[in-house]
Amino acid sequence: MRWPGGLTGLCYGGDYNPEQWPPELWPADVELMRRARVNLVTVGVFAWSRLEPQPGRYDFEWLDRVLDLLYDGGIRVALATPTASPPPWFSLRHPEGLPVTADGVRLSHGSRDTYCVSAPAYRTAARKIASALAGRYGDHPALALWHVHNEYGTTCHCEHVAAAFRNWLRVRYVELDRLNEAWTGSFWSQYYSDWEQIRPPRATQYLGNPGQLLDFRRFLSDELLGAYVEQRDLLRAATPEVPVTTNYVLGGWVPVDHTRWSTEVDLVAIDHYPGEAGPGAEEQTAFAADLARCWGRRAVGGPSWLLMESAPNLVLTPGRMHAKEPGRMIRHSLAHVARGSRGAMFFQWRASRGGAELFHSALLPHAGPQTRAFEEAVALGATLDRLAEVDSGVVQAPVAIAWDAACWWGMQAVVLPSEQLDYLAEVSAAHRSLWRAGLGVDVVAPGDELSGYALLVLPALYLVSDAYARQVRDYVAAGGHLVVGYFSGIADEHGRVRLDGYPGAFRDLLGIRVEEFHPLDAAERLPLSDGTSTGRLWSETVRLTGAEPVLTYVGGVLDGRPAVTRHRYGDGVAWYVSTRLGDDAYRELLAGVAGAAGVGPTCPGAPDGVEAVRRRTAGESWLFLLNHTDVPQTVPASGVDLLTGVRAESVTLPAGGCAVLRER
Amino acid sequence: MRWPGGLTGLCYGGDYNPEQWPPELWPADVELMRRARVNLVTVGVFAWSRLEPQPGRYDFEWLDRVLDLLYDGGIRVALATPTASPPPWFSLRHPEGLPVTADGVRLSHGSRDTYCVSAPAYRTAARKIASALAGRYGDHPALALWHVHNEYGTTCHCEHVAAAFRNWLRVRYVELDRLNEAWTGSFWSQYYSDWEQIRPPRATQYLGNPGQLLDFRRFLSDELLGAYVEQRDLLRAATPEVPVTTNYVLGGWVPVDHTRWSTEVDLVAIDHYPGEAGPGAEEQTAFAADLARCWGRRAVGGPSWLLMESAPNLVLTPGRMHAKEPGRMIRHSLAHVARGSRGAMFFQWRASRGGAELFHSALLPHAGPQTRAFEEAVALGATLDRLAEVDSGVVQAPVAIAWDAACWWGMQAVVLPSEQLDYLAEVSAAHRSLWRAGLGVDVVAPGDELSGYALLVLPALYLVSDAYARQVRDYVAAGGHLVVGYFSGIADEHGRVRLDGYPGAFRDLLGIRVEEFHPLDAAERLPLSDGTSTGRLWSETVRLTGAEPVLTYVGGVLDGRPAVTRHRYGDGVAWYVSTRLGDDAYRELLAGVAGAAGVGPTCPGAPDGVEAVRRRTAGESWLFLLNHTDVPQTVPASGVDLLTGVRAESVTLPAGGCAVLRER
Amino acid sequence: MRWPGGLTGLCYGGDYNPEQWPPELWPADVELMRRARVNLVTVGVFAWSRLEPQPGRYDFEWLDRVLDLLYDGGIRVALATPTASPPPWFSLRHPEGLPVTADGVRLSHGSRDTYCVSAPAYRTAARKIASALAGRYGDHPALALWHVHNEYGTTCHCEHVAAAFRNWLRVRYVELDRLNEAWTGSFWSQYYSDWEQIRPPRATQYLGNPGQLLDFRRFLSDELLGAYVEQRDLLRAATPEVPVTTNYVLGGWVPVDHTRWSTEVDLVAIDHYPGEAGPGAEEQTAFAADLARCWGRRAVGGPSWLLMESAPNLVLTPGRMHAKEPGRMIRHSLAHVARGSRGAMFFQWRASRGGAELFHSALLPHAGPQTRAFEEAVALGATLDRLAEVDSGVVQAPVAIAWDAACWWGMQAVVLPSEQLDYLAEVSAAHRSLWRAGLGVDVVAPGDELSGYALLVLPALYLVSDAYARQVRDYVAAGGHLVVGYFSGIADEHGRVRLDGYPGAFRDLLGIRVEEFHPLDAAERLPLSDGTSTGRLWSETVRLTGAEPVLTYVGGVLDGRPAVTRHRYGDGVAWYVSTRLGDDAYRELLAGVAGAAGVGPTCPGAPDGVEAVRRRTAGESWLFLLNHTDVPQTVPASGVDLLTGVRAESVTLPAGGCAVLRER
Repeated sequence: MRWPGGLTGLCYGGDYNPEQWPPELWPADVELMRRARVNLVTVGVFAWSRLEPQPGRYDFEWLDRVLDLLYDGGIRVALATPTASPPPWFSLRHPEGLPVTADGVRLSHGSRDTYCVSAPAYRTAARKIASALAGRYGDHPALALWHVHNEYGTTCHCEHVAAAFRNWLRVRYVELDRLNEAWTGSFWSQYYSDWEQIRPPRATQYLGNPGQLLDFRRFLSDELLGAYVEQRDLLRAATPEVPVTTNYVLGGWVPVDHTRWSTEVDLVAIDHYPGEAGPGAEEQTAFAADLARCWGRRAVGGPSWLLMESAPNLVLTPGRMHAKEPGRMIRHSLAHVARGSRGAMFFQWRASRGGAELFHSALLPHAGPQTRAFEEAVALGATLDRLAEVDSGVVQAPVAIAWDAACWWGMQAVVLPSEQLDYLAEVSAAHRSLWRAGLGVDVVAPGDELSGYALLVLPALYLVSDAYARQVRDYVAAGGHLVVGYFSGIADEHGRVRLDGYPGAFRDLLGIRVEEFHPLDAAERLPLSDGTSTGRLWSETVRLTGAEPVLTYVGGVLDGRPAVTRHRYGDGVAWYVSTRLGDDAYRELLAGVAGAAGVGPTCPGAPDGVEAVRRRTAGESWLFLLNHTDVPQTVPASGVDLLTGVRAESVTLPAGGCAVLRER
Repeated sequence: MRWPGGLTGLCYGGDYNPEQWPPELWPADVELMRRARVNLVTVGVFAWSRLEPQPGRYDFEWLDRVLDLLYDGGIRVALATPTASPPPWFSLRHPEGLPVTADGVRLSHGSRDTYCVSAPAYRTAARKIASALAGRYGDHPALALWHVHNEYGTTCHCEHVAAAFRNWLRVRYVELDRLNEAWTGSFWSQYYSDWEQIRPPRATQYLGNPGQLLDFRRFLSDELLGAYVEQRDLLRAATPEVPVTTNYVLGGWVPVDHTRWSTEVDLVAIDHYPGEAGPGAEEQTAFAADLARCWGRRAVGGPSWLLMESAPNLVLTPGRMHAKEPGRMIRHSLAHVARGSRGAMFFQWRASRGGAELFHSALLPHAGPQTRAFEEAVALGATLDRLAEVDSGVVQAPVAIAWDAACWWGMQAVVLPSEQLDYLAEVSAAHRSLWRAGLGVDVVAPGDELSGYALLVLPALYLVSDAYARQVRDYVAAGGHLVVGYFSGIADEHGRVRLDGYPGAFRDLLGIRVEEFHPLDAAERLPLSDGTSTGRLWSETVRLTGAEPVLTYVGGVLDGRPAVTRHRYGDGVAWYVSTRLGDDAYRELLAGVAGAAGVGPTCPGAPDGVEAVRRRTAGESWLFLLNHTDVPQTVPASGVDLLTGVRAESVTLPAGGCAVLRER
Repeated sequence: MRWPGGLTGLCYGGDYNPEQWPPELWPADVELMRRARVNLVTVGVFAWSRLEPQPGRYDFEWLDRVLDLLYDGGIRVALATPTASPPPWFSLRHPEGLPVTADGVRLSHGSRDTYCVSAPAYRTAARKIASALAGRYGDHPALALWHVHNEYGTTCHCEHVAAAFRNWLRVRYVELDRLNEAWTGSFWSQYYSDWEQIRPPRATQYLGNPGQLLDFRRFLSDELLGAYVEQRDLLRAATPEVPVTTNYVLGGWVPVDHTRWSTEVDLVAIDHYPGEAGPGAEEQTAFAADLARCWGRRAVGGPSWLLMESAPNLVLTPGRMHAKEPGRMIRHSLAHVARGSRGAMFFQWRASRGGAELFHSALLPHAGPQTRAFEEAVALGATLDRLAEVDSGVVQAPVAIAWDAACWWGMQAVVLPSEQLDYLAEVSAAHRSLWRAGLGVDVVAPGDELSGYALLVLPALYLVSDAYARQVRDYVAAGGHLVVGYFSGIADEHGRVRLDGYPGAFRDLLGIRVEEFHPLDAAERLPLSDGTSTGRLWSETVRLTGAEPVLTYVGGVLDGRPAVTRHRYGDGVAWYVSTRLGDDAYRELLAGVAGAAGVGPTCPGAPDGVEAVRRRTAGESWLFLLNHTDVPQTVPASGVDLLTGVRAESVTLPAGGCAVLRER
């Protein structure tokens, strides 16, 4: 496949929306892009109403000119199909193509993503505009990548969706009684005697059916995937040599299982916007990039992937924006590149004057090019330019954390024993602890090959199929080290509790049996037997059936009972952690288990706050060093720093600074 | 009447939902029930979709087998009509039978309680399935009790409801202008000139009409009662000797006036789930059981009643579940039995694997019979077995607190001077204070005979009819002692303020006149003249018109004005408390007034934290002693402890332990 | 024009709703009004369902009698058209006249304000009842004022509104592409190719279009104004000599631009209910009265205005009511009269027994005339009586603050860089600071003449048109002093950001250029270079392009950068304040700039907490002195105190007391 369209080295750029600006400004845009060494821009993401202002009446002239200008400037294009936001005329002509909330409210146009993915009229219109674009621009030399849609993630509860849901369920269950069984249809008189009785989960009197809620999320992911595949196939047919992708958006509300999707894209692309302004931003960045990296291995054109969107100059937290400190944009970008991103792309090139995202960040801010922000954008371009050679390197991680969208959805579908049980928070805590310990981490899906990992961590893996339980057991039996967190292995893939003692899927493997849950209040701290660490959020009655206690609870109803246990199983070891440890204790525990499993940090001796990630090929390796602290830090690592060209036996990073060492 | 179906002694058991489990498991269930000495289970509560999987096509075989198995095991059945949750086919065939919210959203099936009680199709279908059950099982020897529906408490705002509401209003008011008067129709142009103009309270621009809101709650209670009575009559006709009940659910959202309902049941049955995990759970338990006990006196088969549902092993508070400490389940159960419950029933026998209440507690938890929880269930069975003889005893309380659902609804219908004014909280505070003082308390409704009480307490009795005001006045004139709390007697039964000085209904009786309210912030404390107690939440300008001040406010705009007053009236005394006292001061005040009225604690000398309740017959009495503290407690009481068989002159209860003394 | 209907001196009274009370009570009402010296009452505000109980069937007899009784008692009437609340029959007959929420919920009758202002049926019915009233009472000698409707402020999203919105937009933009440009239609594919595609902003998938949201607010204001003007014209035609007004309600939800409306009323009338119970109540009162005073200058019969509603005896804050301390009602009333109100009117005369506003305050409380509250109402009547002569006096203020409803709406329409950015809070902070400094303040609209002011303050004036930017520039060039607050001049009148550096509209004038925003957390405090003051809520990167720094930031990423700047421009000076100063520092800064501009407090030497306002005619002046503290205060001011008749060279006000000095 033709990728990245004649580009060499890493991609740099972002969403470019020339249709928001007068054509007179476009040449200046290209000139400024060149100054910043931008080489790839995403065009047309929300341009449907400008490309097809009336049904079937296309206006491509402006886009022709934009693509020509860009090409002439040496800039390649990720050309978007604009199907994430149908034009006003579509909604007016096809009100049945508008989405319906669970309350039955049919939404109106006036924002983005306002369509029903199951509505035939929408699907037809989407295919038509995608075909028109493929026909017009398939041969344009600027075209480097097809960018289908944008951040698939809408939901609808209309009758179109109801019919599609039923069809999906028929395929999944074949027999209606298997569905009744999976959904525990006998609870609250929800036993179906005919497929036609089934509806999407709509507003109802009280708690909904968790099986229905979980399957609806699965269905929506597949339904949206179907819409993507339709466009992908059509684009592939038109331009077999141009890779096709879509940009993933992350978040608990997203009805997309990116693991499943990744086999259908040529390149995994993610949008990443951290939701914390402090050090959490760096931790979230590492986690997202590790996720993307592992998804990337499933893609047709993997294992590399691309950071398709991020915010140049701000972090948005609930309630306000935070301007990034100088250097932070570059450091965040390198954190992605270090983990295999083929570049750093941003939303967006030029800050909009109007529209709903007026104060969103941009490479070229409202204040224009004479700004610190744009200077830093220019500096990032130069930096990426110096890193071209790393593009072939691959990250190898000795530790794996399990991640499963269905588990997340399953936990969202039911009233849990504590509202503080939060799947993402549990997985993040494990990832953060390993990241702080300097260990490389893969984020793997059930079914992914485990044999290469010295350590596997399962945080709050509530839903576990029999097959995955078996795979994990075999992994340990063969010598693997395993850490299972509380509220794992509770239910099967339908969300039905595994009986006779928690965690049903892993009881024998762990050599324990949990009888009762004792969730804690947010501020509660249960002392543990080492005298320093404490349990938080959760505790439970663990009985030993083969495991040995490592830490016990001190005081309270669980006094003297096991809190952390260890169990030799086959050639491996299986740990159980029945409470949430504090960050330091969790880091120490995981680093200790990893050490016992024979693996250590990526860069031994790197001080706290300095992130180290290594990309390697068969013969070469590059060590990325990112100083997230606000003081200079010295790292015992040697090589040629690609950013400065200097060879050193020990690297001193300025406050907030970075180095990328060619090690061999 | 045949009750309890051949059983002797107290009932023990809970909801049993065999339809959620494979038939192979049923015999094991019966075996485990026998081990726990379970003798009554509620079957079929949500089984409609399994009993009538398609309209008119019944499937009774499974239930036949369940009832036979239970009977063979010596276990009797409270057989439910499953009408609280129509099957999916019903909703599909009768969309007009689905409930509509105040916003006009027609809900979908997918939960429980999703029906409109006024829809003819629903009523017809409900009668049909109830008749079918009566026909099939009326003669089954296991049948001990009809359990109609479950926790009546739904609301709907559709056109069926509108028509029924209008009919109910016509009966209540006869003349439209009486309704206009009661609802203050001249406010905000809400004067009706035709009955047809009236609607249920639906979403409107701003604050609704409090008269309409109050009457709608009254109507809904009667409308639901009508649905219950239809089924009851049909079951009675089929099996005149089998008692009929329905299980009450408690809560501010419940549109049911249980006082009015209790004359229509053969046995009052309540479901009780405390909402606090600390000592509040015990206080709420005592209050609920005292309510149920007084409702029970109105029932056809009263005065005894039954705790139909409670949670074996957890307390659910907002945000999380709390496992009950060992012994607490038994103590909670005995708190109910002490107050006249004919046993202790639970939701549910076996914890569900799936469905919305996955993590609800059960006698047989997910972890199975080899658990502390099941061991305690077995112990409770043995305990209840030893208490059979108490079933005939009746509680006599010297103090009464008034409770009126209409008052609660009235306070919910209007913007109060303070959002912290909360009827349940006020009544609970009075009950808790008396409970802590060791005094037995009845919770009486307006109109209930008062002559037997030494003390009557009216906390926040906002709505008072002329008739009840007169009854209270006569009670005091005849020598009764009365304590009236602030925000009592403010309005008539329509919620119209009584003029010329608060509390209009009791001004003369109390010898005071209140001019203005001064609500306080939640954390505010107003010092009172005794130097120790403080006022909270509320204060007001009280003028004396005959009463004497007992406590006055110190400082602030009310400095020196009366806070608590006493007024001799006829042969009695009427107190007024114009603020919320702290718990200790309130307890002291009420105990003092009770003492002056000649009554003292149930068990003088019982230490704080030990609850004492006495059941008696003409010739016998039993003293229940429940140690809610976590240290042993010695109580100066004598008799034979039925739990141990030991006779003692003084009882030492272990931490959390209980005793039931046969006193004579 | 005939105003105030034969009254002399100041108006005193309030809403009188005799239709809520038995006719037997009316003579007593009039008698009590006379006792309190009430001379004007508002009648009929919500009486539609009593005046026209059935379509076209009028019942005027009761109102005839009320007006006669009032007239005979010497009381004049502001006669309301009752169109703010159509009768139940209207809603039943014209469901299409009920309003529809953004979610598509058609509201039901049952409250007030439940109508669609664009529905032809509503407009017709409203004109009809207004005409009937004009015909019946145009000649009644009690009639002093027409009070159209009540607190215009409803919203609807139905198809009637959609059509009206499109018509309004066609007039505003003429060409569709100008609308697309103004709304940034190219963002998120919202480009319209036909006017018919446009809808009101209804529920949509995600963020709405800020241009559409802003214009919808403008449209609603004009649409409601159209409804008002229809009634006004009809009343004017019937009774040319009777002034017409409507009472403004204030609040961020109100879709009415009172500045624009004020040219269409004969008398500006406002309802004012402070939302804080502490000193904020006095500050809000001063601000509201200053707003009303400046609106009043636009009115046909201006510049005087009228406080049409306020709460006699309580302040309602979120969660509870606060009884006003003795004297506070009089002080609040005089704060309005001091600023030109032609009297003090209240909601309402007699507290309602029922209805949704049961516990709203009243001149005659539930407890009747034998109350402190009514005594104070009598005292206020006497006080106003003594102030008759001030009615001709006018307030002249040396300082102006800009206020623009469109700016408020614009900031509500978009996701701001910080949720703490709040237009009203910013303007209030500036007003409060000047008020505390004792300076008289006008609150002016864009376009208002500025030449008379020594100082102009623009707090958070986000939206600024080119014309207003020019006007402000000319004002400074000609010698004016200007203080611009952060987040001013950011966008044009369509809400499109002005590029190349904030604040685009004022960059040159201020001699600065802002590159980036750095909003702060609520509790954050940034030290400034004077060592005492701190910045809050906001900070930003200011670059000097001509201005001099006055204060700089200390520490953090902005260390050493300008926080407050000063720039000489033409003959004037332009200040910029890039952060929110604490109240003391802000007061000091503004007082300092005012001093440099040659203006000082209204009453030099008045102690903190004593408000001083002067009304003057050509030859006379009156100084209002209001002691808002709870200790006596001495003020260096001389004259005859109209309240006591005493002449003094220095006035000592009791705690909470007032004086009104005739100075010449």
